[in-house]
Amino acid sequence: MPVNIPETGQKRIVIVGGGFGGLILARKLVKSNYQIILIDKRNFHQFQPLFYQVAMAGLEPSSISFPFRKAFQDHDNMYFRVGKVHEVDSNNNQLKTDIGVVNYDYLVLSYGAKTNFFGNKAIEEKAFTIKSTSQALNLRNTLLTDYEKAVVERDFERRQWFLDIVVVGGGPTGVEVAGALAEMKKYILPKDYKELDSKEVDIYLLQGTDQLLMGMDPTHGDTAEKYLKQRGVIVKKNTRVTDYDGEYVYTADDEKIKAGKLIWAAGVTCHRMEGLREETFNKRNRILVDEFSQVVGYDNIYALGDVACMITEEYPQGHPQIAQPAIQQGKNLARNFRKEEKGKEWKKFDYRDLGTMATIGRNKAVAEIGGMKFKGFIAWLIWLFVHLYALIGAKNKLFVFINWIWNYFTYDQSLRLIINPKDQNERRPPE
Amino acid sequence: MPVNIPETGQKRIVIVGGGFGGLILARKLVKSNYQIILIDKRNFHQFQPLFYQVAMAGLEPSSISFPFRKAFQDHDNMYFRVGKVHEVDSNNNQLKTDIGVVNYDYLVLSYGAKTNFFGNKAIEEKAFTIKSTSQALNLRNTLLTDYEKAVVERDFERRQWFLDIVVVGGGPTGVEVAGALAEMKKYILPKDYKELDSKEVDIYLLQGTDQLLMGMDPTHGDTAEKYLKQRGVIVKKNTRVTDYDGEYVYTADDEKIKAGKLIWAAGVTCHRMEGLREETFNKRNRILVDEFSQVVGYDNIYALGDVACMITEEYPQGHPQIAQPAIQQGKNLARNFRKEEKGKEWKKFDYRDLGTMATIGRNKAVAEIGGMKFKGFIAWLIWLFVHLYALIGAKNKLFVFINWIWNYFTYDQSLRLIINPKDQNERRPPE
Repeated sequence: MPVNIPETGQKRIVIVGGGFGGLILARKLVKSNYQIILIDKRNFHQFQPLFYQVAMAGLEPSSISFPFRKAFQDHDNMYFRVGKVHEVDSNNNQLKTDIGVVNYDYLVLSYGAKTNFFGNKAIEEKAFTIKSTSQALNLRNTLLTDYEKAVVERDFERRQWFLDIVVVGGGPTGVEVAGALAEMKKYILPKDYKELDSKEVDIYLLQGTDQLLMGMDPTHGDTAEKYLKQRGVIVKKNTRVTDYDGEYVYTADDEKIKAGKLIWAAGVTCHRMEGLREETFNKRNRILVDEFSQVVGYDNIYALGDVACMITEEYPQGHPQIAQPAIQQGKNLARNFRKEEKGKEWKKFDYRDLGTMATIGRNKAVAEIGGMKFKGFIAWLIWLFVHLYALIGAKNKLFVFINWIWNYFTYDQSLRLIINPKDQNERRPPE
Repeated sequence: MPVNIPETGQKRIVIVGGGFGGLILARKLVKSNYQIILIDKRNFHQFQPLFYQVAMAGLEPSSISFPFRKAFQDHDNMYFRVGKVHEVDSNNNQLKTDIGVVNYDYLVLSYGAKTNFFGNKAIEEKAFTIKSTSQALNLRNTLLTDYEKAVVERDFERRQWFLDIVVVGGGPTGVEVAGALAEMKKYILPKDYKELDSKEVDIYLLQGTDQLLMGMDPTHGDTAEKYLKQRGVIVKKNTRVTDYDGEYVYTADDEKIKAGKLIWAAGVTCHRMEGLREETFNKRNRILVDEFSQVVGYDNIYALGDVACMITEEYPQGHPQIAQPAIQQGKNLARNFRKEEKGKEWKKFDYRDLGTMATIGRNKAVAEIGGMKFKGFIAWLIWLFVHLYALIGAKNKLFVFINWIWNYFTYDQSLRLIINPKDQNERRPPE
């Protein structure tokens, strides 16, 4: 049965996923003559670059989230639906979803990336990830609960299990998480948990290659590494994690590290949407698109952002899976849909690299903007400004800004709440 | 094995529960020569009077919560522990808890009240309650998820199940929840859910007696009822709920009301702490104390707030189970412990009634202060001011203030996020 959405006679564009790409596309089309349907499994847009601050109790989820319905309140051609897409039926121009069948004239796939565990089931089951607000909150709850358990644990070895943390993956997420954990260890633990010896908290950052922040200039990786080591993070490069049994993290060099928490930030892959032809996907499950974001081999299906792989001379592997390509592709596709209305010719996508950056903590960051390199305080200010600017919602900007100012001057915040869903299992160190 | 807390030779006061009473007691004793141990099952103080605004997506949990450890950062005689108390062993001056045995010299029980289902298991299992932050969030998630389900539900009857809400209990909580639901129906639904006919949303408030706000002057109950009816709430007095099967709410008059959500705010009882003598409790499980808050029949055990029942001439049933008696009893007991240090005589508790109030929504409230009665806009301002003032933490005050101002002028906020713990079950109307 078709899902409950009025047929208005307008051409219908169905967007799957309201991340950076899908959301900007929808917002740019609100004044068009298309009927726009956005389907997402959540009812809010999440600002992924700041998940790690939610996990570290630095920000509230609501400050980095924006309800889709609020974004589209004033527009009659916009329909939002919470739903999960099961399959594309391209012969009938239909999506099969858990809320019914959705017909489309144009389909845009922008459902993003997910964590890649490289087939390791044990890690998938036991590791923490930070790819959604819920996951970030789950990590926050566990982190704080484990500190509470450590306070009352007399046995040294068992206490280490509660305290030690291994972060896997030296990209921006891994670097930012390790940096934030180190700040918590330095500024928060000695005040909140006087009875704990914060020196007992070991924070590891493991990276498979010989350099951190692989996508950036090598000097940035070196700077980040220096900052992290200054903060006491144990950085191990050329260290590939092979397994995790909940007690020890095992590496390819036969080392093992005892830790109750493994945070996995070692790579992403994509969901393989049912119904699309095999040859549509590359080996990391990204959907191959041409320079108009059109999915190879389909007339009216498009893909944007992390899930799309647009091979160009400059980007033979596709664009980096970060916010900017998604945003710019979304804007370009919106422009092209508007051209289509007017019978004009579509414009190819042209990526403008606005730079990349990562923060290691207060006053410490690295940034690369328009070919210029920054580090330290100035890079950190740039990082703050760019992220504040990119956040959706005036109130979100205000609340994040106040939080950051507050935290900067107090070296502290007051979000360290363990709000458990009723049924969270109790964590115990292995006997 | 005794819990991991240093024995300092100081007299030890153990406080069970960091609500209004327990927290103020602990804070007033930070500069004493006692060793203070606060045990709570959560790691944060919750501001109960605003739970309902969390449930209605008006405030974030963090804005009305304060981590205990942060409250005690600067004090060496304070120890906080997350733990559940199983039993009092008064012969040995010990508490048995899930984190080990805790010895005490003085024990203070301030673990508050819990929802009273009057023995009805079906209601206990299926109803929503708002007695904790988690419960408030659970209600918020369900409310928003049900609106999403209603949008795609074509069948009228099934849609009503998702939309209609029965609030049971006409005390301040029930009145405030019903008022907030009516505001959501009036201001939010027509904007966020254009496709829903908000007239389909029925909000019931059922009260067992012939008056709302029983603890206050009867005119306030009448005013509240008038306000609620203006907002479209169906107020039914003299209506006692007897059962709920998840589909229909049944009343003593053999009426049945179809509703997918029953919010139970019909009364409180207390946990019956193991190890205390039978005759310590009254029939609502409150602990009988004398005018020094000392538990009847015990030398070194005290009780404060909702769980304590201090029978006086003016309050033959004990003080009302609201914030003020807890706060004032906590302050008085702190003063008496300080007197004890100096060998001075203890002072009897003298309750100063600062008044009661309830809000029905923007510009609408009733308040009774120092014998004076207020209603409408002025009562609403008083309500806002008093609650803002009572909140703990400067940042909390600031954030709640900004939120309220924002919501007042925009008639809207942006906290309508469904952040589900992974395992929440899908809700479906009965077939």
